[in-house]
Amino acid sequence: MSASTSTDRSLDSFGDAAASATRVTPGNALRPEDIALRDTAPATEAIAQYALWLGDDALIYAQRNAHWVSRGPELEEDVALGNITLDQLGHARSFLTYAGKKWGKTEDELAYFREEEEFTSLHLVEQPNGDFAQSTVRGLFLAIYQHLLYSRLLESSDQTLAAICAKAVKEVDYHLEHAELWTLRLGQGTEESARRMRRALDKLWPYVEEMFQDEALNSELEGVAPRPSTLRDEWHARLTDILDRSGLAVPEVPAAMCFGRRGEHSEYLGFILAEMQVLARKHPGATW
Amino acid sequence: MSASTSTDRSLDSFGDAAASATRVTPGNALRPEDIALRDTAPATEAIAQYALWLGDDALIYAQRNAHWVSRGPELEEDVALGNITLDQLGHARSFLTYAGKKWGKTEDELAYFREEEEFTSLHLVEQPNGDFAQSTVRGLFLAIYQHLLYSRLLESSDQTLAAICAKAVKEVDYHLEHAELWTLRLGQGTEESARRMRRALDKLWPYVEEMFQDEALNSELEGVAPRPSTLRDEWHARLTDILDRSGLAVPEVPAAMCFGRRGEHSEYLGFILAEMQVLARKHPGATW
Repeated sequence: MSASTSTDRSLDSFGDAAASATRVTPGNALRPEDIALRDTAPATEAIAQYALWLGDDALIYAQRNAHWVSRGPELEEDVALGNITLDQLGHARSFLTYAGKKWGKTEDELAYFREEEEFTSLHLVEQPNGDFAQSTVRGLFLAIYQHLLYSRLLESSDQTLAAICAKAVKEVDYHLEHAELWTLRLGQGTEESARRMRRALDKLWPYVEEMFQDEALNSELEGVAPRPSTLRDEWHARLTDILDRSGLAVPEVPAAMCFGRRGEHSEYLGFILAEMQVLARKHPGATW
Repeated sequence: MSASTSTDRSLDSFGDAAASATRVTPGNALRPEDIALRDTAPATEAIAQYALWLGDDALIYAQRNAHWVSRGPELEEDVALGNITLDQLGHARSFLTYAGKKWGKTEDELAYFREEEEFTSLHLVEQPNGDFAQSTVRGLFLAIYQHLLYSRLLESSDQTLAAICAKAVKEVDYHLEHAELWTLRLGQGTEESARRMRRALDKLWPYVEEMFQDEALNSELEGVAPRPSTLRDEWHARLTDILDRSGLAVPEVPAAMCFGRRGEHSEYLGFILAEMQVLARKHPGATW
């Protein structure tokens, strides 16, 4: 993507935000540590703000999804949802680290020391887990969206965003497959499982349209990131295909007016942040 | 370890209980699916019961530890603790699958449809998380224990136990390193962090001795598994070394009388099981 040696090296670097001695993820990857240390220039203000959007989506979704790690319907599912949660946390760390570099803040400062109105996540990700069907539908909506968006960002003129997404899109590809399999299974399952899926679709449909709303910021990101509205048709086409095969229909429910990108949130986000931030705020730097 | 082709193949198989499209763990590994499908004979009753012990320890610890996934002091720590949780869940799945094969039960039937008095986990793993220091000390105690035990089980005459441990010991090696690093950091940190570590050591010390209590079952496992009492000295030596380097001392607190292996538990286990089992019990087979 670039002839610059330092950029090429970072694109080739082998890393994983969720790496441990026990887990290895192959591919062109940027770890949050790589981003923090890179000698390339930090993002522009607009790109940092955009990275914050994507980081907040992944972070808040991970908080919600973490609930399932010990409470899924099968042990195998606990593990699958746990892996998705850790993937999303990894993406959040990368996006937040990149954004924070512009503002002289660490990923942790952005995650733990911002107030509710400074979070820019979509309303979809802060919705309650509900039952397993509702979490499945939320995961499906988000995975289609992230898959389309990260795929487009591979061609971003911003090399760091492109590198983060090169890793993230492979993981989201699995999240999408996972959500699709459960949608097929529950949609084609019993009358009760299909009823719950229909209820979940109705409940979450109002939060779909926010994903495709262009904001003023998007005008400053020509060549860097696609306008959200340009993802709308493809998202609906992919969703409709999956629902068709699952014996489910696209809901006919009006969209809600949501402005998460502007820091306007439902009452749910405050509770999520309280739980997420309490330890870091009580013990800044975890130094006690 | 064995000249049998089918056993050798299973030992060489490449798998990971926590595998996803996004995660690959190298090494000699047995997936729960492999164990369920293997054409080798199921365990003897004694070995199945022993596999249940180890599976229950890992399962209940994973349930407790899952709490931290979205609540750690740093995002990086959320990811690390999440990975440890998923590793332990993976080990639990393998041990429970192997045990269940003897009794015609799946891992999920063993996890979700046993009563409290049928669980054989140690009291240590059901202790509350407490603060981060307490969870660190619990993780340290358990990691030293599992590392010693799984290392010894590599030479078990039972090929399946040996194969499960071949994978698990590499992961527990990382868990131990992680717990040790936090013990050093908190022990040598501020006065407050050292005070919390001392409090955690005092609080959890009563549950140490249970790990080394020989039960009647152990007499039936000659060559298969070490007697717990044979791990005691090495465990204390390793712990003392780590505490010395952390500026902490071995507590002088009497041992509690605990018989988790016989199904006698504290009041905590009931709450853990209620949370873990509710979805599977409400919707058996997750079929709704």
